[in-house]
Amino acid sequence: MKHYDCIIIGTGPAGQKGAIQAAKLGKRVAVIEKNSVLGGAQINTGTIPSKALREAALHLTGVNRRGLFGNTTCVKSDITVADLASVSQQVIRQEWDVIRSQFDRNHVELLWGRAEFQSPNEVIVHGPDSSEVITADQFLIAVGTRPARPENIPFNEGSIFTSDEILKLDRLPRTMIVVGGGVIGTEYACIMSTLGVRVTLVEGRDRLLGFLDREICDAFQYFLRQKSVTLRLGEKVEEIKEVEVQNGTPHTLVQAQLESGKTLRAETLLYAVGRQGVCGALGLDKVGIEFDDRERLHVNDDYQTNVEHVYAAGDVIGFPALASTSMEQGRRAICHAFGQCDVGNYNTSLFPYGIYAVPEISMVGKTEEQLTEEGIPFEAGIAHYREIARGQLIGDELGMLKLLIHQDTHEILGVHTIGTGATELIHIGQAVMALGGKAQFFINNVFNFPTLAECYKVAAYNGLNKLNHV
Amino acid sequence: MKHYDCIIIGTGPAGQKGAIQAAKLGKRVAVIEKNSVLGGAQINTGTIPSKALREAALHLTGVNRRGLFGNTTCVKSDITVADLASVSQQVIRQEWDVIRSQFDRNHVELLWGRAEFQSPNEVIVHGPDSSEVITADQFLIAVGTRPARPENIPFNEGSIFTSDEILKLDRLPRTMIVVGGGVIGTEYACIMSTLGVRVTLVEGRDRLLGFLDREICDAFQYFLRQKSVTLRLGEKVEEIKEVEVQNGTPHTLVQAQLESGKTLRAETLLYAVGRQGVCGALGLDKVGIEFDDRERLHVNDDYQTNVEHVYAAGDVIGFPALASTSMEQGRRAICHAFGQCDVGNYNTSLFPYGIYAVPEISMVGKTEEQLTEEGIPFEAGIAHYREIARGQLIGDELGMLKLLIHQDTHEILGVHTIGTGATELIHIGQAVMALGGKAQFFINNVFNFPTLAECYKVAAYNGLNKLNHV
Repeated sequence: MKHYDCIIIGTGPAGQKGAIQAAKLGKRVAVIEKNSVLGGAQINTGTIPSKALREAALHLTGVNRRGLFGNTTCVKSDITVADLASVSQQVIRQEWDVIRSQFDRNHVELLWGRAEFQSPNEVIVHGPDSSEVITADQFLIAVGTRPARPENIPFNEGSIFTSDEILKLDRLPRTMIVVGGGVIGTEYACIMSTLGVRVTLVEGRDRLLGFLDREICDAFQYFLRQKSVTLRLGEKVEEIKEVEVQNGTPHTLVQAQLESGKTLRAETLLYAVGRQGVCGALGLDKVGIEFDDRERLHVNDDYQTNVEHVYAAGDVIGFPALASTSMEQGRRAICHAFGQCDVGNYNTSLFPYGIYAVPEISMVGKTEEQLTEEGIPFEAGIAHYREIARGQLIGDELGMLKLLIHQDTHEILGVHTIGTGATELIHIGQAVMALGGKAQFFINNVFNFPTLAECYKVAAYNGLNKLNHV
Repeated sequence: MKHYDCIIIGTGPAGQKGAIQAAKLGKRVAVIEKNSVLGGAQINTGTIPSKALREAALHLTGVNRRGLFGNTTCVKSDITVADLASVSQQVIRQEWDVIRSQFDRNHVELLWGRAEFQSPNEVIVHGPDSSEVITADQFLIAVGTRPARPENIPFNEGSIFTSDEILKLDRLPRTMIVVGGGVIGTEYACIMSTLGVRVTLVEGRDRLLGFLDREICDAFQYFLRQKSVTLRLGEKVEEIKEVEVQNGTPHTLVQAQLESGKTLRAETLLYAVGRQGVCGALGLDKVGIEFDDRERLHVNDDYQTNVEHVYAAGDVIGFPALASTSMEQGRRAICHAFGQCDVGNYNTSLFPYGIYAVPEISMVGKTEEQLTEEGIPFEAGIAHYREIARGQLIGDELGMLKLLIHQDTHEILGVHTIGTGATELIHIGQAVMALGGKAQFFINNVFNFPTLAECYKVAAYNGLNKLNHV
């Protein structure tokens, strides 16, 4: 029976970074993967494929340059799913190689199969050909989540599906209903709309992406409607079913019945409300670990479950469930497990959020609404991309960056951006916030010209001018 | 005779920002522009048009995505200069509007005409219809530079020209000799080569862009040669002339004779060696200000010429002659002129350099060569875009980011990047350097996934691993 210092279950972002960290600490480490491919949802069904699809859609339709170049830039007018998928596959294969070679270089042992605890320190790996029992001192559960699939929805892969199946579509539909205005629903609504699919997005709350700053959210909803996406906000779906339609050639459509009495019909429906854990088959009862009704685990600040030597990280522990944060959780869990507590600052309030919608959205720190609620006095400094030479060069008329500046101390309390490169641009503000820089930093800093980074200077001037401090 | 607190000569970056700063301090300010358009070389013949041309070239040829999408992405196969110029013109017109409206909003008075000093506080403005004498307490000379045009070179606009005329070409030539491997020559060599022009680049020194870190420079020269640009380094041009060629239909070519005996021939030649000031007509003898043999002014650290109330900023004072630095110089000169000395830190060693070559290049801080010469012990941490998910998504196989880390203190001594978005990406490192962050900052920071910003984390790991400190 093989013994390891550490066994990690799952090879998504949390599992990967946990495994590498353990190896770097000189530990003997095994990772177990139940799928036939590495990388979890990040690589195979979630982050990477959706971003590759987005990138391909933007590029192949030339949509992000239409302002400057007119319709001469539509590269392919008849885009097939095959065009899109081939780009995804290329990137996915490269990512597999990167993970595989990282594991190999660091002597991380990779075991294929489903993991099931036999006892607190024993795991059986149900492999494709045989089963094997292995033991370890420490464990990290990083099994991720899968889309929630309520029983009353007649999923059928072809026309009613979750985000796991959308990537397998054999043709682009003409119309799609997206149920759920969270990150996944919103990103796919944007991608599909960019590809010319007529999209209706249904969200139970009165706005999309509830955690965003209101001004950014309003701007985003405005842009979506400009792109002919229909938003049905504050609407609940009562029933989803297939219906036969008789006008012209008889054909089948998906029908969503809303509580408000409206009936929506489309060729396809993407259900993107919630994700749930996959802890049920892990044999956690043998270890004494409990999971909630969505099969997710609860951990303390050090990522320990209620059983001290079993850690959990990534989507399986819930919010924020981002690849970026999961990586860091995996690393920190392993550092704690092996007594490496000096792993530096960990200011979760400075985690950035990146939404790969069209346009991109990103934020760090607090929103106007949060600051107002907490009674922290702020002024907002705003820069529009169209005021910035770089914004004009790339033809982005919509983009903006907002700095929230403390009225008295001039500390940066939040940065909110929407537009080209938003998810990259946010890191300048994040670094300044983390290292205690104030709004004046941006005034005095020299930025490359012409860059979008100049937005920070323009926004700082705008905010400080309002405060009469320049 | 109208009197102002301040008169500014020139409306390029230094003049613009100086004027706005004076207005914000409540001063009565006039700016004088001798051309028929605002913005100086930055807007009309230099920075903006060349970047617009570059952006159009990259987009219309789809060159930056060829790795992922193959040749389906070549948007227009028969690109005309008109296609390219129309994009430039659109951006230039927007920039004129932005400057004009900034002047108007801030009550900056705009006078059209050539400025000539009559006495230390009197300037005559030779306008299109009439002349007017105005006076002021303070002056800022921001008249910029123009390309050097040695007399022994037979410039003719059509086939032998400087960067001022390249934008007026009525057709794309098949071949071009570029003399001068500085920023201007290199950027145009890249743009022309991207557009399918066969380029030979001649530089007197043994490398292009002499201020770059050697490793980045080597990589860049490698990429240029991969794109079929011929580099003739360490070569001096002896004579440039037009020659009649008799093979086939008789036609005219440009011939450059090198000191080494080689003869180069091409349809066109861009001469891009040096720029020179335009101080000769300013009447500076009436004020007692001297200029050097390239008609440039010398200033002290506060941007004062040898005559206390006359400041100078921008290209006219020489290195680094970047739009970004000129803006800040103009602002600081005016702040000093009106006794506003508390304008914050001004660490010129943290000025970023952005080269809009193909691929983009950017740097901040010191190079490996400088550090070695100064005896500062460092380790280099490197991240390749191809290791980063975002790099794969955009298909950039070439990009890299290098952190130079102090061996003992782990301070960041320099950041050097080449690849997509390099000029934006550099600002994260710049902020961390300015605010005293160390390599560990990048390890502990959470970056959006997938972004190029992750290169900072990978490079920090790489560097610290080499130092055995992780």
